[in-house]
Amino acid sequence: MIFSVLVDVRLRKGIADPAGSTIERSLPALGFSNVRNVGVGKTIRFVIEAENEKEAHEKVESICSTFLTNPVIEEAEITIENLEKVEGN
Amino acid sequence: MIFSVLVDVRLRKGIADPAGSTIERSLPALGFSNVRNVGVGKTIRFVIEAENEKEAHEKVESICSTFLTNPVIEEAEITIENLEKVEGN
Repeated sequence: MIFSVLVDVRLRKGIADPAGSTIERSLPALGFSNVRNVGVGKTIRFVIEAENEKEAHEKVESICSTFLTNPVIEEAEITIENLEKVEGN
Repeated sequence: MIFSVLVDVRLRKGIADPAGSTIERSLPALGFSNVRNVGVGKTIRFVIEAENEKEAHEKVESICSTFLTNPVIEEAEITIENLEKVEGN
């Protein structure tokens, strides 16, 4: 079965976010006020083949924790969609 | 009113994605096969104050196109949530 995967990676709370801080500091000078709590993260989207949704989840979690994210400072939210189910309807 | 904003930035179709390609090439060597179409994007989350949802949308779109994204190669999906409405319930 084929699954579409979205991994949404964010810095954990309390971890310094230099990119977000820079955006937040710069916006007032560019005419945009009243913006705060800026945080920058990354997304990884891909397609994966697996026997079933459980196996897909396990594979993706393994890929995330070993390769795509640094679990010490980042947390990842995984969204998996069965492409065949959508197409089959 | 206070709004929570998520800007999900992706490369437009056809634009080279070196980070995604590198991940895709590396995964088989790390024991993960059957992964393809890897794409890497970024997210920017923040809180913005505006009179109403329409004004918030206009502000965020303006911030996106002038500052957060390069509209030539990137497309942004904006999600806005009224924090006061959620808290008020």
